[in-house]
Amino acid sequence: MEMVKGVKKSECLELEELRKEECKGKSVKVRGAVHTIRDMGTVAFVILRRRDGLIQCVYEKGVSDFEIKDIKEAASVEVTGIVSGAEKAPHGIEIRLRQIRILSEPAAPMPLPVAKWKMNTSLEAKLNYRPVSLRNIRERARFRIQEGLVRGFRDFLYGQGFTEIHTPKIGAKSAEGGANLFRLDYFHRPAVLQQSPQFYKQMMTGVFDRVFETAPVFRAEKHNTKRHLNEYTSLDFEMGYIDGFEDIMAMETGYLQYTMKLLEREYGDQLQILGVELPKTDQIPAVRFDEIKRLVSEEYGRAIRSPYDLEPEEEVLISRYAKEKWDADFVFVTHYPSRKRPFYAMDDPEDSKYTLSFDLLFRGMEITTGGQRIHDYHSLLKKMEQRGMTEEGMEQYLSAFKYGMPPHGGLGIGLERLTMKLTGDDNVRETTLFPRDMSRLEP
Amino acid sequence: MEMVKGVKKSECLELEELRKEECKGKSVKVRGAVHTIRDMGTVAFVILRRRDGLIQCVYEKGVSDFEIKDIKEAASVEVTGIVSGAEKAPHGIEIRLRQIRILSEPAAPMPLPVAKWKMNTSLEAKLNYRPVSLRNIRERARFRIQEGLVRGFRDFLYGQGFTEIHTPKIGAKSAEGGANLFRLDYFHRPAVLQQSPQFYKQMMTGVFDRVFETAPVFRAEKHNTKRHLNEYTSLDFEMGYIDGFEDIMAMETGYLQYTMKLLEREYGDQLQILGVELPKTDQIPAVRFDEIKRLVSEEYGRAIRSPYDLEPEEEVLISRYAKEKWDADFVFVTHYPSRKRPFYAMDDPEDSKYTLSFDLLFRGMEITTGGQRIHDYHSLLKKMEQRGMTEEGMEQYLSAFKYGMPPHGGLGIGLERLTMKLTGDDNVRETTLFPRDMSRLEP
Repeated sequence: MEMVKGVKKSECLELEELRKEECKGKSVKVRGAVHTIRDMGTVAFVILRRRDGLIQCVYEKGVSDFEIKDIKEAASVEVTGIVSGAEKAPHGIEIRLRQIRILSEPAAPMPLPVAKWKMNTSLEAKLNYRPVSLRNIRERARFRIQEGLVRGFRDFLYGQGFTEIHTPKIGAKSAEGGANLFRLDYFHRPAVLQQSPQFYKQMMTGVFDRVFETAPVFRAEKHNTKRHLNEYTSLDFEMGYIDGFEDIMAMETGYLQYTMKLLEREYGDQLQILGVELPKTDQIPAVRFDEIKRLVSEEYGRAIRSPYDLEPEEEVLISRYAKEKWDADFVFVTHYPSRKRPFYAMDDPEDSKYTLSFDLLFRGMEITTGGQRIHDYHSLLKKMEQRGMTEEGMEQYLSAFKYGMPPHGGLGIGLERLTMKLTGDDNVRETTLFPRDMSRLEP
Repeated sequence: MEMVKGVKKSECLELEELRKEECKGKSVKVRGAVHTIRDMGTVAFVILRRRDGLIQCVYEKGVSDFEIKDIKEAASVEVTGIVSGAEKAPHGIEIRLRQIRILSEPAAPMPLPVAKWKMNTSLEAKLNYRPVSLRNIRERARFRIQEGLVRGFRDFLYGQGFTEIHTPKIGAKSAEGGANLFRLDYFHRPAVLQQSPQFYKQMMTGVFDRVFETAPVFRAEKHNTKRHLNEYTSLDFEMGYIDGFEDIMAMETGYLQYTMKLLEREYGDQLQILGVELPKTDQIPAVRFDEIKRLVSEEYGRAIRSPYDLEPEEEVLISRYAKEKWDADFVFVTHYPSRKRPFYAMDDPEDSKYTLSFDLLFRGMEITTGGQRIHDYHSLLKKMEQRGMTEEGMEQYLSAFKYGMPPHGGLGIGLERLTMKLTGDDNVRETTLFPRDMSRLEP
């Protein structure tokens, strides 16, 4: 029997430690992957790739106790050497190599030029070789930034009194009706994969007042576009005791403000790698659906073709308008037509053709749908009846309302889309670790 | 167009604000659900339920500007009244009611006695009425504690240089082979739900060195026990550049140490509601599989029936032994027999009948399986061949190894089981918001 006492300090150093002034001239041990080797005869540069960045190591024939030919690119190694300042090296330091210990070796040369600054590889090839292509510094930086976006969501909401929940992804019935559902056999019973935690998060406002979830959702949509995925990560929250859907927009704005600061503070190196400029979030314009449609149509001379919905082109123009007129990267579009919103959306009491709901557009694309929901049991039943819906399979959801629910509303944010617009990518697959689309089920 | 500027301070107060000394004697507004009403004629106690706790409000006939009969249990309300100290009330304060505004009303009386301290309701009934039964203070406390467990996991690992990842739940093939998989039709192609993010997190150690994921996993196991679910939340991490599987146990111990402190600091009220005593985590004994089997067999006079695995009863006895001999609530059982571990587990070079792996038992139940994995491409191929496995469908996984992977290992923690053993529950469904088992697909 031995006692495990927790994490011990490793004798191998992190980049942050190596950069300290007192480290200079010292002998250190560092582990990492051999990202690339530039062999110039008696001297060679061995660049190590670590989670915290690249480290330049210098091989010197006669000084280093090994032969450079024994080191392969993509090997995992532990190097021992002397730290010294080096202005042109990443992070201003380099390690003059003494010893090297091979921890693991590849069995084949790399199929993609991952050590290049820009790989110039097609999206298709990058996705086919995902475990390899992500070893490129720029490719992986997107996902470090994505981490910041989801981390900020949780941290901000914890601070606002939200409780994190985990709701089931397999269910008997889904929130938004029968279309676009993946179906499976659940011990000889028909089941579906949830396309949203909508019903669950609503029910839980009656328990925890404010809840959130960050989890996968599944949509069997037969779309094959640059903005659709069949499985994605949804950042969902739902809050009770609201005065109106404006509270939801305020909370989302608060999230974005909090998270841009978090990114600046903790993910600055990753933002720099991708040249990302953070959007302004101090104030976000909110404009009515009808009004912005008209404004954009007038401003850019584009006829309104679809009065009840926004076409992708219109989203681009609305964002352009918001940038030109209000210097805004984000814009809330409010009061969506009722016929395009699900049954649980609350209609505007002043005009029931519209709902107390909104979308958030970011640089030309919808990244959020949200709004106030119906909380009154009888109103909910009435709306379902108007839509010709039956209560079958909805008993549990409806029972939450029967036994009392606070006024509430919420939203869902598509994590991959938010990342995509932030990093300036033009295809949502770029910011999805392992995308699932109509033709892609692997890796 | 209006500008949304972020979260505004509400004029309705939180419990924390109400408890401040300077609030006493002041008129305040508070929102919440009517948890229960105790009507004593000219005086009535109206207990509000909020996310942050219960608040006692006092109705006084003639002083309060409304009739107590107009207030229903389970209504959502906004009350206005004067804060005063009240030793016997929850949190030492009460609100003497002046006005009340009904925000939302129930349509039927509560089907369960949620306002009681202990509901004395069967698990089956509680699960059938989940959105209602969770309104009980003790029922919901479990999930606040569960939040702390997953929050601590992420926060601790962020601090240890891990990157959070989101891996797909729909796949062409799964990590652990063909059994126990839910199958679905994915645009006319056969697909499965992932029973673990195993392959993905391993591949990502080649990119981010250290990764974690907190997400649902799906197991079509035909078990109907108190400890099995068909969908649960798995806390997974995987770390590269390890010296051995001991590093994984050290990291898990670090997580538990960090999280018990977090629970103590931020979830004290919830621990108190359930009377939870936090386990000691300063040191966790680790003992070999063979050795602990023998020790337990000798100590408690129980024959070893299954030499390659631990029976549930044996897990209970091992925990008992650890408590009696080492005063430990947790115990690592190391060096599991190779034949009971998946192909990717690394065999002990000193005796290949055993693996460099472990389980963590907590108060009589396995809550974690982890260990070092094979990182060498040729060794992995050899192990697969020994097991009669084909490379078909494994190409992407294997390619990560072909192009070099660091020595690595990791683990998966069942969140609901960890919560269950911490809260002292005897059925994992108690600590699952909406459990999925062989007979339960709703709510």
